[in-house]
Amino acid sequence: MAETYQTIRQQTINLTASLSVEDMAVQSMPEASPIKWHLAHTTWFFEKFVLSRFVKDYLPFHPAFTMLFSTDNGINLPREQRSLITRPSLTLVRSYRTHVDNAVMALIKNLPEEAVSVLEMGLQREQKNQELMLTDIKHLLGTNPFHPAYIVRPLEPAAKVATLKMLELRGGMADIGHPGLTFCFENELPKHRVFLNPFAIADRKITNGEYLAFINAGGYNDARWWLEDGAEWRAQERVKAPLYWRKIDDVWHEYTLHGLIPLDLNRPVCHVSYYEADAFARFSGARLPTEFEWEFAANSIIPDLTGLPTIADPEAEKNKGVEAMNLHPQGASTATGLKQFFTDTWEWTASSYTSYPAIKARTEPSLDNFERQMVNQYVLRGGSVATPAGHSRTTYRHFQRAQTRWQFTGIRLARSIF
Amino acid sequence: MAETYQTIRQQTINLTASLSVEDMAVQSMPEASPIKWHLAHTTWFFEKFVLSRFVKDYLPFHPAFTMLFSTDNGINLPREQRSLITRPSLTLVRSYRTHVDNAVMALIKNLPEEAVSVLEMGLQREQKNQELMLTDIKHLLGTNPFHPAYIVRPLEPAAKVATLKMLELRGGMADIGHPGLTFCFENELPKHRVFLNPFAIADRKITNGEYLAFINAGGYNDARWWLEDGAEWRAQERVKAPLYWRKIDDVWHEYTLHGLIPLDLNRPVCHVSYYEADAFARFSGARLPTEFEWEFAANSIIPDLTGLPTIADPEAEKNKGVEAMNLHPQGASTATGLKQFFTDTWEWTASSYTSYPAIKARTEPSLDNFERQMVNQYVLRGGSVATPAGHSRTTYRHFQRAQTRWQFTGIRLARSIF
Amino acid sequence: MAETYQTIRQQTINLTASLSVEDMAVQSMPEASPIKWHLAHTTWFFEKFVLSRFVKDYLPFHPAFTMLFSTDNGINLPREQRSLITRPSLTLVRSYRTHVDNAVMALIKNLPEEAVSVLEMGLQREQKNQELMLTDIKHLLGTNPFHPAYIVRPLEPAAKVATLKMLELRGGMADIGHPGLTFCFENELPKHRVFLNPFAIADRKITNGEYLAFINAGGYNDARWWLEDGAEWRAQERVKAPLYWRKIDDVWHEYTLHGLIPLDLNRPVCHVSYYEADAFARFSGARLPTEFEWEFAANSIIPDLTGLPTIADPEAEKNKGVEAMNLHPQGASTATGLKQFFTDTWEWTASSYTSYPAIKARTEPSLDNFERQMVNQYVLRGGSVATPAGHSRTTYRHFQRAQTRWQFTGIRLARSIF
Amino acid sequence: MAETYQTIRQQTINLTASLSVEDMAVQSMPEASPIKWHLAHTTWFFEKFVLSRFVKDYLPFHPAFTMLFSTDNGINLPREQRSLITRPSLTLVRSYRTHVDNAVMALIKNLPEEAVSVLEMGLQREQKNQELMLTDIKHLLGTNPFHPAYIVRPLEPAAKVATLKMLELRGGMADIGHPGLTFCFENELPKHRVFLNPFAIADRKITNGEYLAFINAGGYNDARWWLEDGAEWRAQERVKAPLYWRKIDDVWHEYTLHGLIPLDLNRPVCHVSYYEADAFARFSGARLPTEFEWEFAANSIIPDLTGLPTIADPEAEKNKGVEAMNLHPQGASTATGLKQFFTDTWEWTASSYTSYPAIKARTEPSLDNFERQMVNQYVLRGGSVATPAGHSRTTYRHFQRAQTRWQFTGIRLARSIF
Repeated sequence: MAETYQTIRQQTINLTASLSVEDMAVQSMPEASPIKWHLAHTTWFFEKFVLSRFVKDYLPFHPAFTMLFSTDNGINLPREQRSLITRPSLTLVRSYRTHVDNAVMALIKNLPEEAVSVLEMGLQREQKNQELMLTDIKHLLGTNPFHPAYIVRPLEPAAKVATLKMLELRGGMADIGHPGLTFCFENELPKHRVFLNPFAIADRKITNGEYLAFINAGGYNDARWWLEDGAEWRAQERVKAPLYWRKIDDVWHEYTLHGLIPLDLNRPVCHVSYYEADAFARFSGARLPTEFEWEFAANSIIPDLTGLPTIADPEAEKNKGVEAMNLHPQGASTATGLKQFFTDTWEWTASSYTSYPAIKARTEPSLDNFERQMVNQYVLRGGSVATPAGHSRTTYRHFQRAQTRWQFTGIRLARSIF
Repeated sequence: MAETYQTIRQQTINLTASLSVEDMAVQSMPEASPIKWHLAHTTWFFEKFVLSRFVKDYLPFHPAFTMLFSTDNGINLPREQRSLITRPSLTLVRSYRTHVDNAVMALIKNLPEEAVSVLEMGLQREQKNQELMLTDIKHLLGTNPFHPAYIVRPLEPAAKVATLKMLELRGGMADIGHPGLTFCFENELPKHRVFLNPFAIADRKITNGEYLAFINAGGYNDARWWLEDGAEWRAQERVKAPLYWRKIDDVWHEYTLHGLIPLDLNRPVCHVSYYEADAFARFSGARLPTEFEWEFAANSIIPDLTGLPTIADPEAEKNKGVEAMNLHPQGASTATGLKQFFTDTWEWTASSYTSYPAIKARTEPSLDNFERQMVNQYVLRGGSVATPAGHSRTTYRHFQRAQTRWQFTGIRLARSIF
Repeated sequence: MAETYQTIRQQTINLTASLSVEDMAVQSMPEASPIKWHLAHTTWFFEKFVLSRFVKDYLPFHPAFTMLFSTDNGINLPREQRSLITRPSLTLVRSYRTHVDNAVMALIKNLPEEAVSVLEMGLQREQKNQELMLTDIKHLLGTNPFHPAYIVRPLEPAAKVATLKMLELRGGMADIGHPGLTFCFENELPKHRVFLNPFAIADRKITNGEYLAFINAGGYNDARWWLEDGAEWRAQERVKAPLYWRKIDDVWHEYTLHGLIPLDLNRPVCHVSYYEADAFARFSGARLPTEFEWEFAANSIIPDLTGLPTIADPEAEKNKGVEAMNLHPQGASTATGLKQFFTDTWEWTASSYTSYPAIKARTEPSLDNFERQMVNQYVLRGGSVATPAGHSRTTYRHFQRAQTRWQFTGIRLARSIF
Repeated sequence: MAETYQTIRQQTINLTASLSVEDMAVQSMPEASPIKWHLAHTTWFFEKFVLSRFVKDYLPFHPAFTMLFSTDNGINLPREQRSLITRPSLTLVRSYRTHVDNAVMALIKNLPEEAVSVLEMGLQREQKNQELMLTDIKHLLGTNPFHPAYIVRPLEPAAKVATLKMLELRGGMADIGHPGLTFCFENELPKHRVFLNPFAIADRKITNGEYLAFINAGGYNDARWWLEDGAEWRAQERVKAPLYWRKIDDVWHEYTLHGLIPLDLNRPVCHVSYYEADAFARFSGARLPTEFEWEFAANSIIPDLTGLPTIADPEAEKNKGVEAMNLHPQGASTATGLKQFFTDTWEWTASSYTSYPAIKARTEPSLDNFERQMVNQYVLRGGSVATPAGHSRTTYRHFQRAQTRWQFTGIRLARSIF
């Protein structure tokens, strides 16, 4: 546990290696947070839920940090004002991390049993924040007219992708949700049964090339493909392409964490909204899969071990500097069968985010506090290049509003069978 | 068919009997339409989809009316500007109705078979608009400081309501959706199977009295009960009670289409948003039913014939003047078992509005055009005092955004069984 | 006085002769009011300030009308909700006028001396509302895709306009403001002295032709001519021409109260904002006159009696039906010298609207209540085709926000002399 | 010139001595800019208008900096996005300053005559930015819940202020504006004559104590004192006191650049909007002075040499570290007669910001570019604790929108004499 704790906490710091103090101070939109805030917020969780509970006479690092860095309802700062807190400085926030880490490491030596699951929850949340850090910094650097790279190393070219195939599944009674014997988030519980009609699902994600064909066919201006809300969003935000596509001298490019590159038609399309994913699917005579169809399909395949993320190996992770990471979708393998479920991009599903049926309405805010957001959000399944190891599993439920694009979000098609 | 046509079209006119020209000219919010627009829009449907198709050399009443009164994407006026069209006048719109009615009646004498279902769709849509007319006029008159009554006749007092009971249902495989042999809207198709876990559902709707207890317990300011979006909506709109509740000299009243009345604790609570319904359910240690649970429950009971709306009887409807109508929820009967499913108010469900699984994504706008709205909307089931006969059935799906309150919307609780 | 009262009150009614109940019920934007509201508001003034004060035991027509139809701070309805008050109906508002008129006529027979000036103020205000009624109804009908005419009679063609001349004035000490011996509004007081540097002022207003040259020269997109706020307003509102100009099949037209007409290059440009007037002046190497320069120039000329409005002649006014009115700017006469000061359109001045220097700050809201609006407004001088007789004088101060266009607003140039 | 250049440029750097990289990276509202941007923007001016023009073959430090740091219309970044430019880093911006300073110092050795006035303009603008830097950093630190001090040294207590006296001035022909023989901004030109009626003007500014009496008398909720726009602004922004007043445990405090202090009733009130100044004046039975009355009064007194800022003395300035500065209004001296005209706070005048009469409308953007903002702004006169030496003179015209409060803005009363 001590080693896991240190590895994960260190990985958060690793992710900031190429960032300046300024990069870590500002937020580029209300939905994003300053990196400095991420460093502090993840630390706050351990102070409030682990140290304050399980360490006798624990003295908080600073009494005001709770107000500044919590996300509890009511006492925290408005999200869009997080960048205004220039003090405490980054230096002080780093000291906060060290202070808390030392106290946690001391506690771990003699860890009460009740503290184990809370500590695990804190680490899982920290890892979720690692993905957010990458998407938030991408959004910030992406507004910069110089297209600065977060990682200087260039990307490998993507391999040529085979023609998309729709694979048919019989459906029937499906086991959905996590058995709960190992760690999972509360929204994956309980395991329960859902009845599925027969359906077909694409063997891989949609590529930039396929999406470009949609654009070139006038898809963005064709009312037939768009939900009413989507058409309004598109018009109001003047959306004409995925978030990070840039047309420069009439040539499409894509801004990536590795810098600006010419659009690679073999890579999966990324950073599209639910509205765009849904419109593309309709244009293609298909639809998005439900989250249950997705989970059923993911469970039905023999995992492609080359694509599936490995179980977190502290040693390996510890040595993995950011400069060695590939933080842009690379594309599908040429293996046959269902693939690319846990790599490259999250996949929009047609499912609105809601509780699983046997979970009763809760009257207390829970530690992971998912339920409060269960309205007007859509479920994403799988995982992306920014997802930490251990956060890709068939039951994992990510969720966002329909207009969201700054997460690594892509498209897999499905179709009903009659 | 001729008689049905005349009866339904006449009923639309009947609903305007107590309205002034001004009442029919304005709209009180973008979501509502002027009554004059309703009169014209319902007529436009018959002109465009029946007369223009099936009557040789049919001359439209006025070429510009299509732009003014259609809801086709692109060519119509912005919804919030409908009241600015003071010309054509109400008188001209009435002539438009007469002109079209005469042409349809002539066509009906010799109705091509392909026209039958289109005509039926037009009449069904006209009836949906009748409910909208009542909710729109209620919203307009409800903004008036004089609380004018739409119907002068006073309401009967409500009977005392028995204690709420949660009835347990076993669930299992449930048939959901309309068989499609008689008329239904496309969103009720196809009939398909869904697996349900065991659940309990309330035998009746929540009353004003029960909802008042929630208010008096500080429910509106207690973050534990509210979805994040709901809490924000409530704060921004300064919501403290259902839409038409008015506190006058410290006494709660309710504005109804029969005028302002003291709040009757036995009547069902009405005009609440999804957010309020959801918060009330959480406060009550319960949740809202899914639309499938609702339909399963509605199918499981032997219909209480006193409560269930009768099959449309043209003769009866023709003679039913508005002045004889009761347009405010009256409350549950004292019968035992599940009741009040099709009366009084629509009921919010926990289900996001989406296609049934075997419906493929459509590439053409259909006549009823439901699919375009299938995002960020929640399903309502049942029917209200404003719902025309024939629009209450177990498979009928109404839908609204989570913040909507001007429809007759109420609450029925459910609970999972472990 | 009785005759003047009746004539002016009747003229308000005359202006509604061609309007439907619907035309009078709605408002096309928050700045405009429904015509029905104008009818009631002008009547409210006489009830509140004349009848309630000077008639013993006077019973108000309806106690709630004060709340509905006053403009007193605090107790009135939000301006943008005026159209929602569909009840009282137009019929009831007409009865209100008759009721109040009868009571005032009875009072006039024996009018207390203190009541005279209040009555006069009420009539002056009613006349100001008459101009507003014309601009508000023009704005409403102007949103209608059919371009309905308020007056069916066509306009006379405009005469050819002579080349614009800049006439030089020496300036020096100028008497500004009204002597106060006859009626004036409080913002014209007191008469005081202002020192003016030498300046030149145009002998007539800018024409449509001259303004079209500005458009055709790319004036709307040329940052050199625009105030920063103006450039932002223009971009946000997508302004490309005066408010009622319509390009139809590539030909410029102008919507007028007499219907849509091809743009007449000899008529004065009308319905431009301060921003547009200021940008046009800069484009022309000139500037707008200050209100003092304007008043000085207007006082310096021997009035052209053909252009100057006559003293209000009740007999003449009484017989002047709306159908005989010309309600669109007709253009400059061919007389030499300064002209067109009180006809056709109001003229934007460079002067921010503020108190004259010797008026002390007031601690009580006054009857004409001008001072509350003395910020971020610009003074207009002269008068327009919609201005009632008696409201055009050299000292009269009209005012609007810089972005306003629905009033009859035009341009006269000035220039400093070095 | 070399010494002046170095002193002023160094003073900008001095002002950042106590700031962290983060403090300099963010902006707290669209009207404010990041300190880093100020450092770069002032440098850009010398590069573009001095070096690029007068140094043969000058190579810009970086071609993209013009886009990032200019305020030219069209090519610059939206103001509210300035904080998103985290790269170039502060380090690089400092290099930019050094690079440009070295080139300017080399040029100064052999300065072409035409370059002198441009260089002077650049330095004057840099000094204006120094004041903005102080107000922008105050606004940022003022949002921080910890109330961090910019200068750690505590403030001297303020001396007791004598009762306010209104001093009467005869008015008459007044010389307004700058003679133009030494440096001034274009908006101070030309010197011209204005006629003034007799008026009285307060001998000192309004104090916190006097303003608190207005608050305690319910002044913020009393419609009698407020302009309509002001009342709306106050309600919408929920304004209840000057910008930096904080009520803590029922005791008023004031946030200052020296940290949070208990409200000192003898100091001048500061950080009020035009609306608040105007309402306070009306509450006091007075009004704000016009800018001409202010200038006339300032010219009429024998300068109080203790209060008047000295002519810029490079030696003195060079040695003046920020830690020695007093950056909060200290209060009036006890001298008799008019005083406190150039110290403590700017003073709102009743004058809308506009060109002096003999300045022709310009067709070219000028270097100081004042004219583009001449609408809906109000003139401030005098100077504040944040104003650099040399920027306080009787003819100097500062200006802001009526709702602005983050500048050091205060109140002096005036009154007309009849």
